[in-house]
Amino acid sequence: MSNTPSTTEIEVPRGLKGVVVTETELSDVRGLEGFYHYRQYSAIDLAEQRTLEDVWHLMLLGELPDPARRAAFLARTAPLRRLPDALRPLLPALAASTAHGGPLTALGAALSIAAADRGIRPLYDTAPEQRVEDALFATALVPTVLTALHRLQNAQQPIEPREDLGYAANYLYMLTGEEPEPAKARAIEQYLISTVDHGFNASTFTARVIASTGADLVACLVGGLGALSGPLHGGAPSRALDTLDAIGTPERIDGWIRERVLAGDRIMGFGHAVYRTEDPRSRMLRGVAQSFGGELVDLAVQVEAQVEAILAELKPGRELHANVEFYAGVVMHLCGLPREMFTPTFAAGRAIGWSANILEQAADSKIIRPSARYTGPAAPAPLPTV
Amino acid sequence: MSNTPSTTEIEVPRGLKGVVVTETELSDVRGLEGFYHYRQYSAIDLAEQRTLEDVWHLMLLGELPDPARRAAFLARTAPLRRLPDALRPLLPALAASTAHGGPLTALGAALSIAAADRGIRPLYDTAPEQRVEDALFATALVPTVLTALHRLQNAQQPIEPREDLGYAANYLYMLTGEEPEPAKARAIEQYLISTVDHGFNASTFTARVIASTGADLVACLVGGLGALSGPLHGGAPSRALDTLDAIGTPERIDGWIRERVLAGDRIMGFGHAVYRTEDPRSRMLRGVAQSFGGELVDLAVQVEAQVEAILAELKPGRELHANVEFYAGVVMHLCGLPREMFTPTFAAGRAIGWSANILEQAADSKIIRPSARYTGPAAPAPLPTV
Repeated sequence: MSNTPSTTEIEVPRGLKGVVVTETELSDVRGLEGFYHYRQYSAIDLAEQRTLEDVWHLMLLGELPDPARRAAFLARTAPLRRLPDALRPLLPALAASTAHGGPLTALGAALSIAAADRGIRPLYDTAPEQRVEDALFATALVPTVLTALHRLQNAQQPIEPREDLGYAANYLYMLTGEEPEPAKARAIEQYLISTVDHGFNASTFTARVIASTGADLVACLVGGLGALSGPLHGGAPSRALDTLDAIGTPERIDGWIRERVLAGDRIMGFGHAVYRTEDPRSRMLRGVAQSFGGELVDLAVQVEAQVEAILAELKPGRELHANVEFYAGVVMHLCGLPREMFTPTFAAGRAIGWSANILEQAADSKIIRPSARYTGPAAPAPLPTV
Repeated sequence: MSNTPSTTEIEVPRGLKGVVVTETELSDVRGLEGFYHYRQYSAIDLAEQRTLEDVWHLMLLGELPDPARRAAFLARTAPLRRLPDALRPLLPALAASTAHGGPLTALGAALSIAAADRGIRPLYDTAPEQRVEDALFATALVPTVLTALHRLQNAQQPIEPREDLGYAANYLYMLTGEEPEPAKARAIEQYLISTVDHGFNASTFTARVIASTGADLVACLVGGLGALSGPLHGGAPSRALDTLDAIGTPERIDGWIRERVLAGDRIMGFGHAVYRTEDPRSRMLRGVAQSFGGELVDLAVQVEAQVEAILAELKPGRELHANVEFYAGVVMHLCGLPREMFTPTFAAGRAIGWSANILEQAADSKIIRPSARYTGPAAPAPLPTV
């Protein structure tokens, strides 16, 4: 029986599969076509031709910027990279207490503290322009917090952000203290753009449910981060790289893969719930990896080809292709990111998509609140005597 | 179009209203009957006749404890009240940075840090017994963190928990440093029991969505806290008390209320989305308040009676009764809780319900992941030239 006695109970598939919970103008995935888009543009076109700031502007403000607006947006967001004074003294202890879980474990706590210190108000009480400002603040801070935590967890001092660099270049700069090669900054930028959004996944849904209560934007982001940390949601871009390490050399590929497939193991980095074609992110990132070249890239390309051939032979009819994890790990490795920063980097890109989804949800006044069916023993039962 | 191309899109009411997302054996609300229950027992019977530990045991472990099990449960949970060493040095800065928002603003961050330090693993990787242990750890810590933050925000040192006191008595003790009168501890215990769960609300749903990804239990709790902070979800037990303050004396009631109702204002503490009868929590808490007596209680009882009479006269046919906020604020005030601790106290009780819901969800392997419908411009559009 329902909590809302005037409402009929509505039966739907488990996990709300296929249930349309909202309309969105932000993105979609067309899995059968091997295509996904941000607003009206192909995400891959955007990754190949635009900057991260352009895509951030598109998602949050609704359109791609012209050169003047691009410059204004960079000038608006770059100062927001600075660590708030309230957060700075807390970071060493935050880094220490979450050392086991890595930087992502402390990101939500750090953002909550920064939001409280800044006095970010519930979405419900916030004008649309201020919501955008809050979203830029929280999202711009993510790379700074992640790199600071990572450095502290590795006995290094955090590096102050540079406002003259683009988002991706500054991210790599804060990680290493050295200005990155342009090709590496661009490769990471393309990866980040490709991860900004990907349809209505569980973390995006979580962020929108919290937003529907009118809570503050950072509470919604933190909820999204929580869902992303779930093994059934987030992938782990480092797993595919671990596979390449385990294989080691091209001549070992065939034996290694056949053994795993025949044992019924999943090959990490292959297969996707939505795409029946090649994953468009994988194709783009393969190109990025090949522009660097080298032994690891050659091995990856050969592994991909042989895995697809072996899977086609041993599991005919299944369309199993390399997914985003496979080349994402290779690209991040080539650009100098340590493996423990792979998932945090994914989260940094996705935070842009979450914040756009939160703002879109905030424009809707309806709380998202389904029902549950009580299936326990009939109530009320008398209390047992003590 | 859906993300899951093989699935038909399913149309449902806005906000998923009435959509059955899960089965539960934990609780239900029968709004037409003015009745709600935890498992098979009336929540009000439990509040009137049992301890908080009994109800916690019932929700988490499935049954009310006998005296031996009650003692064992208290012995198991009381040591978990201690502040973890990793958290202790962070609390002053946490309290300072979140001073504006009050203790609840920092609770999620504090729990995340404690969980990371303890090495709490994703639900997906955790055996059921360990999940219970993690739930007890996080829930037992809530009153300690909240009272410590409150004291630090008021330039007082935190008070170490006492293991010889029950949950509610220890809560008041940590707040004031003095062992509370038994009647006050019992009144707060009854309030806490009455707030443990209340059907499938937005925060419980959020916690379960995150749990469905296999994330760790504290990530789910933090998501629930985020949703609770939303103005469209959580009430504010202090608002009704503010109303009583504004009215001041019995002879001002009639004029004050009529003026507000005729102006179309909502009277805080009256009306509920689910109950068409008297709110059973309100009825119980009125009794608790009356057992203390005094001017404030007399005023509250008169306000309630006159508001109901005036609403029946001016808005005939509407069933508007005092809701849980109305007497909850009075009871918490009588027991010495400052207003900024009202909502945190509500969250402390509800954390027990959330954790039981998270464990129930964790036993289901299906991710909760609905769809969205893209309604933006047709894609793909060519990128504009720069």
